[in-house]
Amino acid sequence: MTGTTGMRCLEGCDVVVDVRSCSLSCPQCGGLLDVRHTDPEREQWTGAQWRACFDARRGRGGHPGGSGVWLYKEWVMPHLPEESIVSLGEGNTPLIEFPRLAERVGVDRLAVKSCGVSPTGSFKDLGMTVLVSVVNWLRASGSSLEVIGCASTGDTSAALAAYAAAAGIPSVVLLPEGKISPAQLIQPLSNQARVLALATDFDGCMELIHALANQGVLYLANSMNPLRLEGQKTAAYEMAHQRQWTVPDVVILPGGNLGNVYAFGRAFQWMYQRGVTTSVPRMVVAQAQAANPFYRSYQDGFSERHSLTAGATEASAIRIGDPVSYPRARRIIEETEGIVMDVTESELAEAAALADSHGSYFDPHSGVALAALDKLVRLGEIHSSSDVVVVSTAHGLKFTEHKRSYHQGTLPGCSSVMANSPIRVDAEVEDVMRALSLEKDDAPL
Amino acid sequence: MTGTTGMRCLEGCDVVVDVRSCSLSCPQCGGLLDVRHTDPEREQWTGAQWRACFDARRGRGGHPGGSGVWLYKEWVMPHLPEESIVSLGEGNTPLIEFPRLAERVGVDRLAVKSCGVSPTGSFKDLGMTVLVSVVNWLRASGSSLEVIGCASTGDTSAALAAYAAAAGIPSVVLLPEGKISPAQLIQPLSNQARVLALATDFDGCMELIHALANQGVLYLANSMNPLRLEGQKTAAYEMAHQRQWTVPDVVILPGGNLGNVYAFGRAFQWMYQRGVTTSVPRMVVAQAQAANPFYRSYQDGFSERHSLTAGATEASAIRIGDPVSYPRARRIIEETEGIVMDVTESELAEAAALADSHGSYFDPHSGVALAALDKLVRLGEIHSSSDVVVVSTAHGLKFTEHKRSYHQGTLPGCSSVMANSPIRVDAEVEDVMRALSLEKDDAPL
Repeated sequence: MTGTTGMRCLEGCDVVVDVRSCSLSCPQCGGLLDVRHTDPEREQWTGAQWRACFDARRGRGGHPGGSGVWLYKEWVMPHLPEESIVSLGEGNTPLIEFPRLAERVGVDRLAVKSCGVSPTGSFKDLGMTVLVSVVNWLRASGSSLEVIGCASTGDTSAALAAYAAAAGIPSVVLLPEGKISPAQLIQPLSNQARVLALATDFDGCMELIHALANQGVLYLANSMNPLRLEGQKTAAYEMAHQRQWTVPDVVILPGGNLGNVYAFGRAFQWMYQRGVTTSVPRMVVAQAQAANPFYRSYQDGFSERHSLTAGATEASAIRIGDPVSYPRARRIIEETEGIVMDVTESELAEAAALADSHGSYFDPHSGVALAALDKLVRLGEIHSSSDVVVVSTAHGLKFTEHKRSYHQGTLPGCSSVMANSPIRVDAEVEDVMRALSLEKDDAPL
Repeated sequence: MTGTTGMRCLEGCDVVVDVRSCSLSCPQCGGLLDVRHTDPEREQWTGAQWRACFDARRGRGGHPGGSGVWLYKEWVMPHLPEESIVSLGEGNTPLIEFPRLAERVGVDRLAVKSCGVSPTGSFKDLGMTVLVSVVNWLRASGSSLEVIGCASTGDTSAALAAYAAAAGIPSVVLLPEGKISPAQLIQPLSNQARVLALATDFDGCMELIHALANQGVLYLANSMNPLRLEGQKTAAYEMAHQRQWTVPDVVILPGGNLGNVYAFGRAFQWMYQRGVTTSVPRMVVAQAQAANPFYRSYQDGFSERHSLTAGATEASAIRIGDPVSYPRARRIIEETEGIVMDVTESELAEAAALADSHGSYFDPHSGVALAALDKLVRLGEIHSSSDVVVVSTAHGLKFTEHKRSYHQGTLPGCSSVMANSPIRVDAEVEDVMRALSLEKDDAPL
């Protein structure tokens, strides 16, 4: 196979960084990198050729064809040998229409792309299969890379540990000592990551992991790594594919470090440029008010890059005050006439509860996205004739405590308008029937 | 469309029960019912025709084609109008090969079918989409069915509540008062099921729900309902499809009420009878030693139907002393030269931890299945040349507490040989490097 894969500076410096590099910033300006492939064999393919290629392959069983990421291998990592792929069957996530919820929110069509219905329970699987597969390839090609590491308390460490375990590659997670409960860490611990509790804070852990990566001691899996974005793009490819190669008018997703909105935006642009689809959706980033630096920058017309100390939010995975991928995300918002919105803790919790009442099982981040949609429709910024997809980034099963607090009415500042709790009834047919007839009056929509 | 759908007595009584019936036992002998379809249009189809039909459809997007259950609609519920289908994108679950785990256990090939990577986190979604869709159809056809109900503390109530919410049909869950924590109920509560806490025990709840169903007050969603089995069969169809219409030598799954082994067995037989596949796997049921009535009956050559008071087990969903589907499961074991095995609490926990160390995220029930495989290989009852699939029935995210206890070494009677916990390290490059080199020595396989 001809063609190459390398990393290029997002800001346009004239450098190519080898994908084998452990250091993941531009050697000239220190900025972010983007993965770029050349693929002369398929350069001239038409949209129809691409659609036919993926249509024929979709649903084919076996490894790696069963993966919803590697289905799009030519767009993800065309030169990776198939035998290097490390997959846990990620992707193939539901895209479900919620017609009554669409009516309630006031748009023509509303679907949820449930990226959390996945092996480790979050969209991070999509990127991690790519990152770990590339490391697996480099090791098979003689690289001395021995460990993959990250500083993370949540979904990233869970995904890293699972894929590294599947590959038989040691992984390490760095964390501030005493700040993290075992419950938060049970996924990487179960997948036998080496979890190091450091006598420092979270920023200290990040500094240390960068130092270790720069010295070549470990390969960095944190979100500045552009390989992960290549996998995350497949959620957009898959969404278009599931809609018979059409795209919605608007795609809304929660934003923290902002890598995901860039991945989605670039993926939609990629398909459009190749004639695979005929338009690019407006991309909308939804933030929690307690951690809304990107919203503030957007409000200022991106004249200033805001950063702040992120406050507590139930949407814990997007509690980020200085997003790594700010320059990436800003481009997508500008290029797609996108929008940034923020929502309160009460709004995100009520939105998640509303989605649940329609059969979903939302994590709080997806609640942020749905609440932002609701606000934007009411403000007229998203038209009622719109065809909208909300991206759900994690499985609600990871947020049992949040849901308990909501239904017990103990979330601060939230009135829990949809709170539901068990009703005590005598064990008699008549009593149960009475409880059921009460139920019908206040049944959910 | 011609053809009919009805329910027939498993024991062979000459009766046909309407699918609209709320009472789900044979009116002559009181025994279990089976769903049967006639489908004259496709009666003469060859295996090649069926394979081509499903191959062309697999991976097609949209509703209900995006569902891994309704892909096989002609085998599931051929006469159901498409507009009645209530789907959350169930099915399409990973079938992942674990080559190093196969070697460790001592078989040629070992894959895990991860049925828990699904909207509500368990295989129950497969059956519930069928049951709720049929009720939706009956209501659209003028039935007065107003409520669907079950007595369950776990996966069944979660699935019922989610699909009923998606359909806009009220659901009710009956439970013994004071025995169930809010955490166990957060799924049905979130999906706005009416949860009734009754002043009785679990058997009392079951009696009451049967009485209500017999009076036509609600439609019964408990596991005696054969509609659910029609959906569960699709996990076997999908497994064969993912393997390009081949089947493994052995399929192992955890057994409690025993409906699932019957669904899998009948599905494999169905494909074989139609020439879609060329063999039927041996079906293996794995039970926890604390709740092993089926194992005891098997040991006695099925001369006696054992029942017992099930003891505590981490595999809580199969803590059942008198399985509803005993007559169904016995047939499958006899017809497929199947095996029944039981495992201790320590064995199931160690097996789940072993699978996790290879990148899985097992629930304890799947640990029961893997531990049973390990024992049967060592006993020579499963040959080392075998091609084996272990069915994982729920997502490990539902069992955080089990995993915490394992890794903290607090599971009674379990020595937690793979326990993993955070290691305290100073925040210096050298100290981290030392911790990493220690790690390499005792890295998982």
